Amino acid sequence: MRIAQIAPVCESVPPSGYGGTERVVSWLTEELVRRGHRVTLFASGDSRTRARLVPVVERALARGGGADSVMAHVLEIGAVQRRLAEFDVLHSHIDYLAFPAFRDSDPPLLTTLHGRLDIDGLAPIVRHFWQRPLVSISDSQRAPLSAANWVATVHHGLPLADYPFGAGRGDYLLFLGRMSPEKRPDVAIDVARRAGARLVLAAKVDPVDREYFDTVVRPRLDEPGIEFIGEADQMGKLALLRDARALLFPILWPEPFGLVMIEAMACGTPVIARRCGSVDEVIGGAVGRICDDDDALVKAVEEIGAIDRTRCRRWVEQWFSVERMATSYERIYRRLASGRKDRAPVRALVPVPAAAGERR
Amino acid sequence: MRIAQIAPVCESVPPSGYGGTERVVSWLTEELVRRGHRVTLFASGDSRTRARLVPVVERALARGGGADSVMAHVLEIGAVQRRLAEFDVLHSHIDYLAFPAFRDSDPPLLTTLHGRLDIDGLAPIVRHFWQRPLVSISDSQRAPLSAANWVATVHHGLPLADYPFGAGRGDYLLFLGRMSPEKRPDVAIDVARRAGARLVLAAKVDPVDREYFDTVVRPRLDEPGIEFIGEADQMGKLALLRDARALLFPILWPEPFGLVMIEAMACGTPVIARRCGSVDEVIGGAVGRICDDDDALVKAVEEIGAIDRTRCRRWVEQWFSVERMATSYERIYRRLASGRKDRAPVRALVPVPAAAGERR
Repeated sequence: MRIAQIAPVCESVPPSGYGGTERVVSWLTEELVRRGHRVTLFASGDSRTRARLVPVVERALARGGGADSVMAHVLEIGAVQRRLAEFDVLHSHIDYLAFPAFRDSDPPLLTTLHGRLDIDGLAPIVRHFWQRPLVSISDSQRAPLSAANWVATVHHGLPLADYPFGAGRGDYLLFLGRMSPEKRPDVAIDVARRAGARLVLAAKVDPVDREYFDTVVRPRLDEPGIEFIGEADQMGKLALLRDARALLFPILWPEPFGLVMIEAMACGTPVIARRCGSVDEVIGGAVGRICDDDDALVKAVEEIGAIDRTRCRRWVEQWFSVERMATSYERIYRRLASGRKDRAPVRALVPVPAAAGERR
Repeated sequence: MRIAQIAPVCESVPPSGYGGTERVVSWLTEELVRRGHRVTLFASGDSRTRARLVPVVERALARGGGADSVMAHVLEIGAVQRRLAEFDVLHSHIDYLAFPAFRDSDPPLLTTLHGRLDIDGLAPIVRHFWQRPLVSISDSQRAPLSAANWVATVHHGLPLADYPFGAGRGDYLLFLGRMSPEKRPDVAIDVARRAGARLVLAAKVDPVDREYFDTVVRPRLDEPGIEFIGEADQMGKLALLRDARALLFPILWPEPFGLVMIEAMACGTPVIARRCGSVDEVIGGAVGRICDDDDALVKAVEEIGAIDRTRCRRWVEQWFSVERMATSYERIYRRLASGRKDRAPVRALVPVPAAAGERR
């Protein structure tokens, strides 16, 4: 098929550092190219891809690309409009911005919403543009907008070749991500100490989180067994994941999809998480522990040796591979493209994967 | 004609306080209604109009309307799209946001750009959407984007009935507007003192200008003859203008159109301005003084008695009335609506008014 991938231009595709959406768009794009689709990637000019790249801005906005975000994405939409005849389907990853720009007579526009949906003002937009088919990245993400035109949940998937399996030989638990209050690095420290385990924290401190870090987290970094190593790049992240006994993921916010969970499991590292957001859908009993309180988190650490690391990797191979993600999207693209003539809103095209769990 | 006016929703139409764009949209809308057009105003729900009002958000964003600005305006565009068949022409005042949303097969979209055009990222958008007919609010405004698809300059116009003529009996000069560095209240103080004249400053202090005000302006408010009275509401503004000897407008930035200049002249108050932005186009030798330096500003104050206040009002009646503005827009609307079939970009529909001056 002839597919337009409309990526955010805040980061390059793939991103140099953070940027979950741009990373997933990159994985999907490269896999679709590998399958023989003619993919055009609308993204920042410093992106790297085997698809045809239409650069919207010279450099990603986060790397000094200049224009403000709304302007850059309006420009991107214009670039897509100019090439409409070249596509069978348009796949947007830039939230609601593309909604008003396309018509029934255009190639169908599919939008994957990558963020939280409990944002002020989003509900009226989704109601207004109710015909726009939407994909959620987890079932739990939909809660604030459950009545929207969801055609599927497509969980993220990653290229397993890029995530080598590791034996977990390091004697540490891992906290990976950002030092923000809702990620609860403080709980990770509590849990590790109570379980008598070492904890490595590899995390970025954004300016907005600086005060939180300085007042809540930093004073505790001298406690025994606690080691903070700053932000890890992709290679450092893989090395850390390979050797970790478990990933601690004690988040306290409705994360739409925690990419780091599948990255960990791909490397064989089980996940100990708090029940929140998409956690239920991403990890199951054989590959991690879903806990309702701190006591359960401590107990899960103590029992983590019972989890077979090879099952973690197989879990990702089975449910969270880029191949599976691409296949899900292919089905949606085909259905949308073939349904162009009847114009009816397309619903429930793809069976929504059940919440992951032992029953699988 | 059946006309859609697409207003910003940051302020109501008309605005309760500041909000030049919303004020002009209100004047234009009411005049078009008076002329028998079927006007639909897309604006915040707390707007007041004789047109049909389509409320986009319940309250103006500046008055706690909730949603962020981009979301609200995307919603507004959606509301227009849903009613496309009801219009002969769409007139947008929301910058570039509507550019990607309408097609050649839709009623033509006219956009008046109300702001500065030397904004990072705007030039590529205007180049990309080069077919969109644009109106500038002064010739000087166009400078940063001189090659865009300008179809006319339409200077703002006001309803003279709302601006009663005054004899200028107060023995003071007036500085009116915002206390920001580019408006140069400090120069107004210098000039008044050197000319031995009283100066009344009626101006808003925005939070962003607080430090400037505290360090540069406030220390000088105790000087003889200088009086600061805070922000004036519309009634207070009219009273001040009616009795002022002159408006001091020593701006040092390319103001696209200084609404306060025509408000002053409508009340009979001449304008003493620095040559900058649209000043050349708005005031002429019989109704004010355009000065190149501070000495000239002082001299102008000393000679201000030579200006006949009735000529100031006639100047506004002749060039800056709402009737004239509406007539200019009517011509553009008609031309755009009649040109719908050929699709060619419309250029230079209306003779651009020459820079105002004695020759008029």
